Amino acid sequence: MKITTFTTRNNYIIKAMSKPSIPKGTRDFSPIEMVKRNYIFSTIRNTFERFGFLPIETPAMENLSTLTGKYGDEGDQLIFKILNNGDFLKKADKASYLENNYKKYAFSISKKALRYDLTVPFARFVVMNQHQLAFPFRRYQIQPVWRGDRPGKGRYQEFYQCDVDIIGTESLLCEVELIQIFDEVLSNLGLPDFSIKFNNRKILAGIAQVAGIEDKLVDMTVAIDKLDKIGIDKVKDELLQRGISEEAINVINPIFSLSGSNEEKLQLIENILKGNEVGEQGITELKSVLEIVNNLGLRNAKLELDITLARGLNYYTGAIFEVVVNGINIGSVCGGGRYDDLTGIFGMKGMSGVGISFGAARIYDVMEELDLFPKESTATTKILFINFGDDEALHCMKIIQDIRSSDINAEIYPTIGAKMKKQMKYAHDKNIPFVAMVGSNEMEKNIITVKNMETGNQEEYSIEELVAMLRG
Amino acid sequence: MKITTFTTRNNYIIKAMSKPSIPKGTRDFSPIEMVKRNYIFSTIRNTFERFGFLPIETPAMENLSTLTGKYGDEGDQLIFKILNNGDFLKKADKASYLENNYKKYAFSISKKALRYDLTVPFARFVVMNQHQLAFPFRRYQIQPVWRGDRPGKGRYQEFYQCDVDIIGTESLLCEVELIQIFDEVLSNLGLPDFSIKFNNRKILAGIAQVAGIEDKLVDMTVAIDKLDKIGIDKVKDELLQRGISEEAINVINPIFSLSGSNEEKLQLIENILKGNEVGEQGITELKSVLEIVNNLGLRNAKLELDITLARGLNYYTGAIFEVVVNGINIGSVCGGGRYDDLTGIFGMKGMSGVGISFGAARIYDVMEELDLFPKESTATTKILFINFGDDEALHCMKIIQDIRSSDINAEIYPTIGAKMKKQMKYAHDKNIPFVAMVGSNEMEKNIITVKNMETGNQEEYSIEELVAMLRG
Repeated sequence: MKITTFTTRNNYIIKAMSKPSIPKGTRDFSPIEMVKRNYIFSTIRNTFERFGFLPIETPAMENLSTLTGKYGDEGDQLIFKILNNGDFLKKADKASYLENNYKKYAFSISKKALRYDLTVPFARFVVMNQHQLAFPFRRYQIQPVWRGDRPGKGRYQEFYQCDVDIIGTESLLCEVELIQIFDEVLSNLGLPDFSIKFNNRKILAGIAQVAGIEDKLVDMTVAIDKLDKIGIDKVKDELLQRGISEEAINVINPIFSLSGSNEEKLQLIENILKGNEVGEQGITELKSVLEIVNNLGLRNAKLELDITLARGLNYYTGAIFEVVVNGINIGSVCGGGRYDDLTGIFGMKGMSGVGISFGAARIYDVMEELDLFPKESTATTKILFINFGDDEALHCMKIIQDIRSSDINAEIYPTIGAKMKKQMKYAHDKNIPFVAMVGSNEMEKNIITVKNMETGNQEEYSIEELVAMLRG
Repeated sequence: MKITTFTTRNNYIIKAMSKPSIPKGTRDFSPIEMVKRNYIFSTIRNTFERFGFLPIETPAMENLSTLTGKYGDEGDQLIFKILNNGDFLKKADKASYLENNYKKYAFSISKKALRYDLTVPFARFVVMNQHQLAFPFRRYQIQPVWRGDRPGKGRYQEFYQCDVDIIGTESLLCEVELIQIFDEVLSNLGLPDFSIKFNNRKILAGIAQVAGIEDKLVDMTVAIDKLDKIGIDKVKDELLQRGISEEAINVINPIFSLSGSNEEKLQLIENILKGNEVGEQGITELKSVLEIVNNLGLRNAKLELDITLARGLNYYTGAIFEVVVNGINIGSVCGGGRYDDLTGIFGMKGMSGVGISFGAARIYDVMEELDLFPKESTATTKILFINFGDDEALHCMKIIQDIRSSDINAEIYPTIGAKMKKQMKYAHDKNIPFVAMVGSNEMEKNIITVKNMETGNQEEYSIEELVAMLRG
């Protein structure tokens, strides 16, 4: 890469790359990728709307104070802060600069930051707009988020989240509907085999109580959450390291080896939790959701009770969900759960909610691997008109007006006098299925000669016939 | 607003607002606004695709070096810079800190920035992906941009741009197609009366040559561009201030008072530019575009030659466009033009392109003012099922499955045992047109009682009848 250094009118020096690049961990999306991504997003969006959810959008930039302290210390470090505009040094905190305390100094030169997820902005939105919203409020939100994670395979600094939440009710029908939404979206996308794993934080809380480690609930949850990645033995090591006794671990132990049907697992865990109030409440909730879902039926999803499912986020208090695609080793493609006090951080108490999130990037990768994207896209150009010259082009543009007014995507190669070979290559590169050729002969007879790019066949059409054929 | 101060685990102090807010100049979009915005975006998107354009997306964060120096000194100051993650003080430029040179210092603690428009990222994209693209490359891009402008009425720090460009050809058919796109999009949105003003930079360049102020072309352009805002006299004052002589101004003068049809104006300007090569080329181009557009016809748009149209951006070299809605005093709602060397800044020469941009926020305001948004939206919930209790809810959820599978948006009020009045208020607040009531009587007879929320009428339906009615 050639790097040239030049001086701007303001006399500060910028390195200008003659070969441009984009920041690590960010991506451009080409037309081919966009058409596929939009297919996923529109499937998700349509399903959300079918269930009565409506979209909101929040700004990319939030006040730094809105985000700080919501994602733990580690999360705080990954938030992208925006430098104050103008002479930010005027209000800079000189003391912390001299102490090399960059964390404290950052707050004196930055007041805004890029959103880290859609959940905190959603809570902020609900609190700010509480008097305008119809509760229980059902919203969906499909927007990018930004995190300063080290970029890696499948890990980006900018990525889309697709969230759907119901806030303002404790009704378990919401959990049922969210399970239906997992099933609908992924079935509509053509995924043949996936499992919705579900659990309830009250079960984990009950187990911690029974094991006498109620104060270590978070430690227990964090360790158990790693089961899939590190295995039973290492989870037990971590439980010990986190100060949980052998005795307590023995009480927890049975949940690592639960097997059988959802009902059989529930029976076993019921025995462990007998007489424990919060645990029994968790079981009642799980049973209720399970019964309704079984009654309504699912399309392609398997519903699988997994008592070791914990999910990292601390704000979950009830149901928790995770979706995996069976046979594809990519981790979970969706997740979510119930939270009893998300808006409490902004001063609005007593708003229970439940929500789920679709990981569009992972779903994209799964669909590529399983070859599930539709072969024909309605977004791309259906027919290209070859440009033979000024008069022919004008004639073709009139025909194209008719075709477009029939909701068919059409274009003419713009450059007058471009070689035929070049124009055909353009059609081929852009994957355009039909090419129209209208020379003086066709103009005279008022017909259109059309080449099918797949078969190579050439046929003559009137405008009406052509529109009918393209609509096919 | 109550502000509490607390100390985090890291001992730096954050002000946490119990009443949250968003940064000045940014906006939340509620469901009602989103439905309207999406109506505009999808109309724009569909029209772009009808003309063979395909979407791309670029990251919100670009390398700071990609953006700096592209928007003039003033623009550079409005770019939002992102603070480097981690201990950014390690590599901070201490010398410029001590000199209070915040401009220079900023480059040592920030390597990334938020995109300022879609044009520079597009040029960067074309250069980086030139070997994968089919040229002439037709792309559209609908994404937010960020600018640190002082927030004000109708002026935001985050707003969407909707750009469409063809790059890699000088063909004037592109100009014609972009005029057609202005016409299609705004006619499809229901705007009854708007004017596409057009001009050609070569005309302005020719006039500058004829007036003997070729070296002052930019000064002339910048001053003339203000005609609409400040009037003829003040434009002349500014021309004088910018060092353009009385004599030269007398040569320019006739363009301020051109009147008549486009053809008459062209005739007058042709007299002024007789014998000037670049000027005559501009006239030839304008005539050619005008002739084809007149031949093809437009729907609602008036096409209006405006020799004083200059547009601020310096990279325009040929056609320039601006669209105003007649009778609405809001400024231009769209703009654009041809540029001969946009990718040159990234080392790729000889790529002529032409593009236009739709200002979604202004179009939104115009449509509100003219009451052009459709009254019925397909995005919102069509029918709400009242929740009478556990058994009724389960029964309703089965009916809802059938309704949703017919592509109709439906929901059940989730909270079991909520008061009827509360549930009806929810339907009313959410603007849901039909409310279904299924009690034990309806369950027995397998019917659904439906209230039309507008008329107040109540009728009984079978599921099939209900689906047919809702589809109606």
